[in-house]
Order: sequence, then structure tokens, then C-alpha cells
Amino acid sequence: MIKTAVILAGGEGKRLRPYTEELPKALIKVAGRELLYRIMKQLQEEGVEKFVIVINERFKEKIEKFLRENNFKAEVVPNPNPEKENGYSLYLAKDRVKGRFAVVMSDHVYEKEFIKEAIKGEGLIVDRMGLYIDRNEATKVKCEEGKIKEIGKEIKDYDGFDTGFFVLNDEIFKKAEELLKETDKLTMSQLAKYAELPCTEVSGYFWMDIDTPEDIEKARKLIVKTAIKGAGDGFISRNLNRKISTRISPYLVERFTPNQVTIYTFLLGLFSAFVAYFSPALGGILLQISSVLDGLDGEIARARMQTTKFGAWLDSLLDRYVDFAFLTALTFHMKPSWEFMPWVFLALFGTLMVSYSTERYKGAYCEDAYVVIKELRYLLGKRDERIFLIMIFTLFGWLKALLVLLALITNIRVLLTIYLVWKKKGNV
Amino acid sequence: MIKTAVILAGGEGKRLRPYTEELPKALIKVAGRELLYRIMKQLQEEGVEKFVIVINERFKEKIEKFLRENNFKAEVVPNPNPEKENGYSLYLAKDRVKGRFAVVMSDHVYEKEFIKEAIKGEGLIVDRMGLYIDRNEATKVKCEEGKIKEIGKEIKDYDGFDTGFFVLNDEIFKKAEELLKETDKLTMSQLAKYAELPCTEVSGYFWMDIDTPEDIEKARKLIVKTAIKGAGDGFISRNLNRKISTRISPYLVERFTPNQVTIYTFLLGLFSAFVAYFSPALGGILLQISSVLDGLDGEIARARMQTTKFGAWLDSLLDRYVDFAFLTALTFHMKPSWEFMPWVFLALFGTLMVSYSTERYKGAYCEDAYVVIKELRYLLGKRDERIFLIMIFTLFGWLKALLVLLALITNIRVLLTIYLVWKKKGNV
Repeated sequence: MIKTAVILAGGEGKRLRPYTEELPKALIKVAGRELLYRIMKQLQEEGVEKFVIVINERFKEKIEKFLRENNFKAEVVPNPNPEKENGYSLYLAKDRVKGRFAVVMSDHVYEKEFIKEAIKGEGLIVDRMGLYIDRNEATKVKCEEGKIKEIGKEIKDYDGFDTGFFVLNDEIFKKAEELLKETDKLTMSQLAKYAELPCTEVSGYFWMDIDTPEDIEKARKLIVKTAIKGAGDGFISRNLNRKISTRISPYLVERFTPNQVTIYTFLLGLFSAFVAYFSPALGGILLQISSVLDGLDGEIARARMQTTKFGAWLDSLLDRYVDFAFLTALTFHMKPSWEFMPWVFLALFGTLMVSYSTERYKGAYCEDAYVVIKELRYLLGKRDERIFLIMIFTLFGWLKALLVLLALITNIRVLLTIYLVWKKKGNV
Repeated sequence: MIKTAVILAGGEGKRLRPYTEELPKALIKVAGRELLYRIMKQLQEEGVEKFVIVINERFKEKIEKFLRENNFKAEVVPNPNPEKENGYSLYLAKDRVKGRFAVVMSDHVYEKEFIKEAIKGEGLIVDRMGLYIDRNEATKVKCEEGKIKEIGKEIKDYDGFDTGFFVLNDEIFKKAEELLKETDKLTMSQLAKYAELPCTEVSGYFWMDIDTPEDIEKARKLIVKTAIKGAGDGFISRNLNRKISTRISPYLVERFTPNQVTIYTFLLGLFSAFVAYFSPALGGILLQISSVLDGLDGEIARARMQTTKFGAWLDSLLDRYVDFAFLTALTFHMKPSWEFMPWVFLALFGTLMVSYSTERYKGAYCEDAYVVIKELRYLLGKRDERIFLIMIFTLFGWLKALLVLLALITNIRVLLTIYLVWKKKGNV
């Protein structure tokens, strides 16, 4: 269990000027949050409690202000000689850490799952694939018998890429000392090779280093794209809605707060219900659009690391209002006979109960039903699928069939949910 | 933080024969669970991890079997001389405990809130009121300057009653040793007085000792009655429904499992909906009856210490089915005009949303909204209140007024809930 992390933020950020005239690279915002905020928050979520930040001496106050404003506790180690490279920066943390600790480059961005895996490793974390980085620019690594053999930007025969994430112990400072007797400058690469650090492979996740303004743009898009994982999406959401919304959210992520997006998509949903009373087809299209956009608030919130339980709670409630408003507007448009009305009531009830049953599960067990009972992910009837069906059927004017279908799909789903939960959790 | 408990079960249970020919008093069942099960479970819930049980030697195997069957871990100390009284029993635990520990009489029953408070005390826990015990039989205590001065059944001038719950430290064994040099028998009362134990007052909760078959009956009723606290009841539930159901549950508590009661009251609820289609007044009465009985499953489960998350989850879902079935049956009976239908839809939606909004809160925050946001307890619109309204209004035939009222009460309640949650949790 790694509880300490050293963040190396001693560099000069030459290629990011003019951003970095006044700010250290670590405080540059990407997708709404500073690089340093992102890495500290992610490490905290994996259990790191103690932070040591090595910073270019001239930015010491700015870093301390940032820490205060964001309620972070950290030891700040000023580096008066940033030109001596990042290995020297690490050496400056010598008396501040004991035992095992993570070392992370502050100018890198990582996705949550990478940090989760990397922090369980040893030595240098190596990514065999480097899916998102500029491979020409990246530092390559050759490992032999589980240890670093060669490391550098120019090596031809390599196994993977240096992710800028290390898990070390305080022996590393002895090695750094030995090297610094011979030389003035010391890079992490030189130190890693000299210390014959172990290689741990963690491949395929999103990570990259931020060197240029283009990198900031690229990172923004990828942060949003990778922020949607595990969000309990249905078939339509995964294959259609998210493909659209994740193209939009990068442009919004720095302009809107998640709660603003929640309210706007809610108003659009209500408007689609209003329109459906007059024209179901048009209403259905607007509803589908609102369903696509409805993913945005979550994407933006996750990308900005601004997810709040309140935001999620409110978003769910407003979705129920839209579901209800649309179905009743459709019903008022149809004014069906009393013979048909049972289907209407069942569709309304089933629609609300799909959400109720899984939310009540979470209230009972404090765990996500979709995580614990995997079959639930594959049953039809989630909101994205229902709304897509609504759009198709209203387009063709098959209104009665739509209500019958919704009534069946949703209520069967709820009954199956009861069965699956009983199987998993009942009579224990 | 008390993590160890010594349970004194060394007695002979003379007045409970023939129950106690084959079983120690500690294994007598009251309201579906053995006395020993109740106290061990309650102590576990307050953080006790280590148990030492002093048992009459001849019941050693029965106790060990009980512990195995219920997955309890405990050290069992056989007492070859139960006639030497319970102070001697405690002395036998001498080498098994260190530091601070609770000492509890196994033939006492306590309510959960008492244990919660008592375990924070020091010395002998004294109840000034003794609301549920036979005061003639009880051991009385006189305290002076916070310490025991007199203790016994006959004393005239007393401050309270000996609850049979102690929080001691291992000094007590020295005191017991000193006394046992002079005498053969030793009661906890004698030991408590000699050691000048502190007095801690915890008054007003349900506790009693079980000495006679009549005590078992009395305890059964009181366990059920006190098991309903904190169940999130509304006005009607507290003042009408519970007064009825808690008179019924003692008779059911040993005959039915909670899940059986859940299913039966659900079927009654569905039946009331079916009846309401033909006769709203009769349906309303049946619905109110089912609402009263609906509290039973929870009461029985809590009294039997058999609450399961699955039971609570299922009960909530079935309640939603009954709510929906009844309102739609009523609507089909009325067949109102399209002009009136908005009220119908709003009543249905609001009814489901009252539950949805608070359940979704629990799913988001893993805490009970009614505990965290106290105002919610006093808003109208909970199920017991709605159903009572339904009964009154259907009795008088005011069906349209009923639906309008339900629509207003439930939806306003949900909007107020959104506001209160936003005030408490929003924009943090």
C-alpha cells in the first residue's frame, strides 16, 4: 500500500510558453482542472495520504496558494536548480520520504484506471502500447529479466514506453547521490538505468505528457472520452449516444458547469414533451437529442473531476420528470379508449419502476446493482434504449404499439430484476 | 471503545423449569432468538469483537454447539460451581481478559439503544426509572459521589436499579480475589459494593431480566414494541398503524417469517385494488388494513433480529405495485374525462416519486435522508398518510377530490425534497 507520493514539478516548461511565463506547468489547466490537481486527486483516491512536491523555486508561492485553495496538504520542496533535470529534483526529496513511495511527473495526465494499476507495481511503470502518446518524442525502455536495461528517446530495440510513473524505495537516494558525485545534471532516465530499476508493465490505458499547446487540446478530448467508462450505459448509449456526446463535451467542458448542462437538457426534455402533444414524431426526435445530450453533464463532471452526488441525484430525478412528461403528452395526443388505457398505465409505471428498482437496490446495499449483478446490463429497457425506441416508433406513427412495447419491456425487466436480486441476495 | 465482553451465564435458572432442565437460561428463545444470541449480536453491533462466556459446566457442549451454528467466536469458561453465584463466575474469567471490558448478565434482555449508551459508561450501569421491571424483585442501588454506596434487593433509600450491565477493568479480579479469601460465594452486588464501582446512569430504555415463564411472555411483547423505533414512520403510522400492528406482531413473531408476512400483505394490497374497482369505499378500507399490516414484516424482522436488506428491498417494491394498482383501479372505476386526467397522472407520478426521491438519495449518499434532513419527517405525503387519506375520501365518495389532493401533496413534497436536499447538499 503506497501512502506517499513525490511529484516532480521542477521543470521549466519551455515549449508551453507563454502559458508558463507566470505559471508552472503543473498548474496549467486541462479540461477544467490543473495537472497537479488531477494527479493529486487520483493518487488520493488510491490511498496516498502524504505528498511531497518538488517545484521550480520561482513558483513556490503559486504552488502553496494552489494547495491552500484546494485544501491539499503537501510538503513543498523548492528546486533552485531546475536545469539539473528531474533526477536531481527527486534527490531533493531525500529527507522527506521513507520506505516505499510513488514518483510521478507532474506534466503527465493519466486516466484513473492506470493509476489504480500502476500504484501496485514496482520500479518503472512501462506501457507496451503507448496508445495516446507521440512515439517519436516518447522515452522508450528495454527491459531484461524484469529490470531496466536501456532507456532513452533514441533506442531502436525497446519493449515499451516510460510512463513517468515510478514506485520506488528510499534506496534510490543512495544511487542518486552516487551519480551526483560524478555529474551535475541527472535525469530520471539516467537514474532509473543506473539503479537497474524493475520494470512493471501496465499497458493500454490513457496517459500522455503535456509539452505543447497542441498536447493540451489533445488531452482535453481524451480526458473526456476516457471519463465515461463504467457509467452504466445501455446499448444505445454505448453505440450511438456517447459517440456523439463525447465529441461535443470537449468544447463544453471548460464553458459550462455540469449542473448547468443538467438543467438545460432537462428543459429540452420538457420541451420535447410539449412538442410531442402536437407532433409525436418531432417530439420523439427532440427527446432523442435530449437523451444524447443528457450524457454530457456526467461526462463534463467526470472530466472536470467535479462529480457531485447532488448532481447525480438531481439528474436522475429530472430524467424521471422528462420520462413522465413525454409519455403523458403522448397519451393526451392519442386520447386512447379505456380499453387501451391499461397499457398506458403499465408503460408509465414500468418506466419509473426500472429506475426505482435499481436505485432502491443501491439504497439497500450501498453498491451498484449493475456491478454486482452483471446480467442487468444486458436486459433491454434502460433509458437510452427506451428513448431510442420512442423516437423510431413516433417517427413511424406506431403509437399504440410503442406503449404496448414499453409496458412489456419495462415491466418484464423489473420482474427479472426482482428474480435476479432474489437469486443473488435473497434468503441469505 | 470496549472491544471485549464477559457474559455471565453460569446460573441455574431454577424458576424457569422445565425450560431449563435441558437448556441453560441463556439459550432460551424470546421472540424467536436465544437470549445469548440477542446480547452477543447487540454487543457486536457496538464494536465488541471478543467474547468470554462463563457457563454452568453441564451446558458447555450446548453453548459450543450454539456458537458454531450461529457463527459466533467466543471463549467458553465452564463453571463447576454455579452455586457460588455470579461474582464467582466473573472471577473465573480472570486470565481471559485484559484492560477494559463489559460484563453482562445473560438472562437480561436489553433494547439496542440501551446497549449503545451503556457501553460508553463506567462501572455499574444504573437505571433511575426501571420502567419495565418488577421493582420489588429488582436489585436497587444507592450511589454517593458517583460510586456505589449500597446495593441490594431490600434497600429502602435508593437512586436506581442495577441493570446487570457493567463496564470494568481487570482491577476487579484483585477485588474478587480478596473477597473470595474470606468467603465461598460471591455475588456481583457484593463485588460491586466492595470495589466501590462508579455508577453511570442510563435511564428510560427497555431492559428486564428473565426469571419466570411470565417474564418470557412480557419480554416478547416489549421486544416487538421497542423494535419499531426509528423506522421512518409518518404521522398516521406512529399514531394509528403501529399501535395496532405492535399488538398483533407478538403473536406472529414466532409463527411467521418476515418474508411470508411481506407476501401476504402484498396480496392483500392487490386484492384491495381489485375490490376498489367495484367499490372504492370497501377497497379503501382493505387498503388501510393492508397498510397497518404492512408494518408487521419489519416489526417481526427486527424483533427476530432477522432484518435483511433483501426483505426491505422487496417490501418497498411491492408497496409501489400496490400503490399503483390501487390508484389505477380507482381511475378505471371513475373513468374521468380527459380534462381531469392530468390529475390522475400527477397523482400516480407523485406517489411513485415520493419514494423514488428519498431512495435515490440513499443510493447517492449511502445515508438515510430522513435522518440527515429532519424536515422530511414532518412533510405530509408518506405512504401511511396517503393511504389513510385514501380510506377517508373513498369512504365519502370524494374520488376526484382525492386524486387532486394526492397529486398536490405528493408533487409538492417532491419539490420540497429537491429544495431541502439542494440546501443541504447542493453546490458544495
